[in-house]
Amino acid sequence: MAHPVSPLAPAEYPELPQIAGVRFATAEAGIKYKNRTDVLLVEMDEGTVVAGVLTRSKCPSAAVDWCRDNLPGGKARALLVNSGNANAFTGKKGKAAVQLSADIVSKALGVNAAEIFLASTGVIGEPLQAAKFSGVADDLKARLAPGPWMDAAKAIMTTDTFAKVATATVEFDGVPVSISGIAKGSGMIAPDMATMLSFVFTDAPISAAVLKGLLQPAIDRSFNAVTVDSDTSTSDTCLVFATGKAGIEPITSPDDPRAAVFSEALGDVLHELAIHVVRDGEGATKMVTVHVEGAESDRSAFRIAQSIANSPLVKTAIAGEDANWGRVVMAVGKAGEPADRDRLAISFGAIRVATDGERDPNYSEAETSAYMKNEDVEITVGIGLGQGRATVYTCDLTHGYITINGDYRS
Amino acid sequence: MAHPVSPLAPAEYPELPQIAGVRFATAEAGIKYKNRTDVLLVEMDEGTVVAGVLTRSKCPSAAVDWCRDNLPGGKARALLVNSGNANAFTGKKGKAAVQLSADIVSKALGVNAAEIFLASTGVIGEPLQAAKFSGVADDLKARLAPGPWMDAAKAIMTTDTFAKVATATVEFDGVPVSISGIAKGSGMIAPDMATMLSFVFTDAPISAAVLKGLLQPAIDRSFNAVTVDSDTSTSDTCLVFATGKAGIEPITSPDDPRAAVFSEALGDVLHELAIHVVRDGEGATKMVTVHVEGAESDRSAFRIAQSIANSPLVKTAIAGEDANWGRVVMAVGKAGEPADRDRLAISFGAIRVATDGERDPNYSEAETSAYMKNEDVEITVGIGLGQGRATVYTCDLTHGYITINGDYRS
Repeated sequence: MAHPVSPLAPAEYPELPQIAGVRFATAEAGIKYKNRTDVLLVEMDEGTVVAGVLTRSKCPSAAVDWCRDNLPGGKARALLVNSGNANAFTGKKGKAAVQLSADIVSKALGVNAAEIFLASTGVIGEPLQAAKFSGVADDLKARLAPGPWMDAAKAIMTTDTFAKVATATVEFDGVPVSISGIAKGSGMIAPDMATMLSFVFTDAPISAAVLKGLLQPAIDRSFNAVTVDSDTSTSDTCLVFATGKAGIEPITSPDDPRAAVFSEALGDVLHELAIHVVRDGEGATKMVTVHVEGAESDRSAFRIAQSIANSPLVKTAIAGEDANWGRVVMAVGKAGEPADRDRLAISFGAIRVATDGERDPNYSEAETSAYMKNEDVEITVGIGLGQGRATVYTCDLTHGYITINGDYRS
Repeated sequence: MAHPVSPLAPAEYPELPQIAGVRFATAEAGIKYKNRTDVLLVEMDEGTVVAGVLTRSKCPSAAVDWCRDNLPGGKARALLVNSGNANAFTGKKGKAAVQLSADIVSKALGVNAAEIFLASTGVIGEPLQAAKFSGVADDLKARLAPGPWMDAAKAIMTTDTFAKVATATVEFDGVPVSISGIAKGSGMIAPDMATMLSFVFTDAPISAAVLKGLLQPAIDRSFNAVTVDSDTSTSDTCLVFATGKAGIEPITSPDDPRAAVFSEALGDVLHELAIHVVRDGEGATKMVTVHVEGAESDRSAFRIAQSIANSPLVKTAIAGEDANWGRVVMAVGKAGEPADRDRLAISFGAIRVATDGERDPNYSEAETSAYMKNEDVEITVGIGLGQGRATVYTCDLTHGYITINGDYRS
């Protein structure tokens, strides 16, 4: 599991603010890994509300089923996350394991099981030994504290090579409202729901209904707009918890102007976490941003951008620093969306390489090749049919991806 | 371009029969490669009919456009194929290049341009220097001969590491009818039409309409059922030419019982060629057959099988000889097709690894790991919902794929 840290890892990490009403601790439960933390317990004060988005996989993990049952209640008092085992495709044993996990947390913290949220990430198909949580529960409870967030981010990592955190603070009438978020994800990442685990905490006083309404659009522009390998996880979970401890009047209507401000800040945090996930894409050496414009609709632009971002041939070309825009044409062509070959325009960065369905007359191989050496590569495709636009983020496909995934389980 | 020959290459090649009414020759036109043949010219006798299936890409090559225009005529006198340049996304220059190519062939052989078929494979976006064909046209014409087919198969290769040929012979009332086919394809292979170039020749006397009707179902079970990397080519072309020279009464109705016999033989040839393409998948070290059964419909089964066969995580696990059936579960879950996690059953070869939504109680890691060392790996997934079934063929995803595609163009 000891892969080299992604060359795209952030140079420095922000200091995440403590969130009033949130305390957490991590421990080594020995689920799979040795000599590292693999369990995160978060306790939240009474009155905390929650909204979440879960994987659309038809084979979701037992923990995802559990969260889906509890989310409609909108209330949260605890979150338990483990890494090393996804508790997915574990049948009745998996269901028993989530029940046991919740029982352990319920007993330790004296909270209702319906207000406990669970997430598991790691190997699929291996029964989760939830009893191991009881061995660390008392210790976790004794060490609950409002920081440091990096510890929480580290405990939920699997093949991640760096911890993922993001934060934002907004002020309403001079009163700060903080958002602190963590995420994990590196492979099995595709834009179909929040393709990873992400947990965001805020002290905003906001109703569960409003929070829920804000979340999906923010997910669509963040976690749903990234892809590493087109593979959608069975465990994807994004939960946002709001303790309500910030000293402002509660936000109880989506029409409250503060909802839009908070939504933008929440969107920024989710977007930053999603970008971190791409930058830690398994084997990634380059960050790739694919813009599609001029499609018949935003949805069509998104599908074309996905087709480009998921193409192994586009991604290997970028890994090879090869300005192979012909493969971008191929990916547009196979997307199944309206496109007219003879209206296509393609740019790499600011360099227009193709226009009106053929190579740009001013195309310079040397100039384009030099651009491909950048760590961040932007591809812009003009479809020339309408006003639809979308952006999808991905990384290159390298030998590192093969090495990491050729023998992950053993 | 000198990649090691696929370990899955056939141990021996069949002797392909000459097809009465078909003569061909190959030459070094110097389109891109040096010291190898890169152009194939086939001349066919008057009375030859043709049926074809072309890429569904929205960005087809100029040669595909040309064939699409000529196919409705149903008559063929010549085929010109070049490797090294796909003449795709070449705008007006591409259109001019196909016209010039046809003019050269028309003049050399004295045949109508409407009965000339063209195919190009190689780099996208680079103008094709069709004038180079005129330099070799007279020489090609002088050397036209009914064999050897291996020369034809070699001239159309790009990243292929072995030539692809297949043949079948059926007898009607003791009179043999022969089919000889060649194909190329190794990357940019996905099941959406014949994702490659394939040309099949038969001396069967059969009407163009009947031939057309037989072709699509045969394609669906062969070229449309294989995938290497989920990338669909701009140039996909499968053409079947029938010279009518075999001494039997013409097959002019799909209800003629001989049509079914011929169709089966044609299907066998196309299937064998398609399997060759997978076995020469870029970087392939293992051949993978994915069977899905018990889906709600055949179409649904096909989509689930595609999702498994295209999953980078499934393919890298197979490359690593890792019996990671959890990734198969993931791929079923992301397919977007009806599936019930708790009814799934998965087998690797004859070993049932999962049943009723969890690991099989008799699962043996050692036995399954031993199976994964085979060169041919079969994955069978039971969905447990209905009678739909489908089979898709693919290969593993290895370092070789990255190496081949990280710097193909330069």
